[in-house]
Amino acid sequence: MSDELPLPERILDAAEVMLRRHGAEKANVVDIARLMEMSHGNIYRHFPSKKAILDAVAVRWLQAVSSPLQKIANESERSASERLEAWFHTLRAAKRRKVLDDPELFRVYHGIAMQMRAVADEHVATLHSQLEGMIADGIARGEFSRELDAKAAARAFMQATMAFHHPLMLMQNCPTDEEAHTAIGIILNGLKAGR
Amino acid sequence: MSDELPLPERILDAAEVMLRRHGAEKANVVDIARLMEMSHGNIYRHFPSKKAILDAVAVRWLQAVSSPLQKIANESERSASERLEAWFHTLRAAKRRKVLDDPELFRVYHGIAMQMRAVADEHVATLHSQLEGMIADGIARGEFSRELDAKAAARAFMQATMAFHHPLMLMQNCPTDEEAHTAIGIILNGLKAGR
Repeated sequence: MSDELPLPERILDAAEVMLRRHGAEKANVVDIARLMEMSHGNIYRHFPSKKAILDAVAVRWLQAVSSPLQKIANESERSASERLEAWFHTLRAAKRRKVLDDPELFRVYHGIAMQMRAVADEHVATLHSQLEGMIADGIARGEFSRELDAKAAARAFMQATMAFHHPLMLMQNCPTDEEAHTAIGIILNGLKAGR
Repeated sequence: MSDELPLPERILDAAEVMLRRHGAEKANVVDIARLMEMSHGNIYRHFPSKKAILDAVAVRWLQAVSSPLQKIANESERSASERLEAWFHTLRAAKRRKVLDDPELFRVYHGIAMQMRAVADEHVATLHSQLEGMIADGIARGEFSRELDAKAAARAFMQATMAFHHPLMLMQNCPTDEEAHTAIGIILNGLKAGR
């Protein structure tokens, strides 16, 4: 934890250490303050409650997934199908790292994100809107079929790739790289069909 | 339970009643025999152990899913994409019925099928081979792209439709009918692309 980071960031870093050590139930503001060698009053000036800290941890955790995806979605010099393919592989890799490299920590974070329904729903809405933007762009450029509805196609894209990035599927179903490459190829060809 | 059914079938029916009532752990051969008003020696003549009964229950339960799908796969007078679409909707409907109509019983059966790894693996292999057959047929008829590898495409098809029929996804992710229709349309167009 560097002192150069703004205090709220350092509080969240410390909160993550405590979450990792004790889980979301037992982690508390007093222990976070002790770890940071400051009074808990200092923490409450930035976060009014433990719930506010958990919420901010979940937001930051999910943004670490969605920010690189947003960057890809915005690369309008690339074709829509290149961006969709990069988006897919980046999301898959990020989720695999989170789920498989540190399953214990993942369970804590996933549990928090699931309790913070509003946060989780907003994250999914962000991903849907990135997909919709890229697909709409592909339709406008004549790269994808004009018969597509971008919003419906975005939702279908998310579902058709779910096996490759949903945490439960990564743990239970373990799709291979070859399956991922073949599937995204078929889906992208499907978006192009009937141009 | 009709007396017209062969005894092994009636034993499995009775086993299902006991599984529903007591779960896989507590269900036992003596109780099954009592329910059927016969000696348990009579049951052991057909099934050497409780494990053999559970195995047979799992096989029958999974065949209730795969048999109608096999029928669809065999309908060679229909186009490959019609059959794949019917296969997809039939699998989805069967899994939804099983998972959502009676979640308790589903959990018991699913637990048994997961313990009987060989049975479960064979079931998945059956589904893969149905898909591979339909896709190979579609390639041979010039309906699907000749660049496809039927085996790889079958595995990719299974993964790309997983969100619509995997029990965990049906419980947690609840894809809509519209998403299912849009996704299967994109996937089928993807198989056709580049003919």
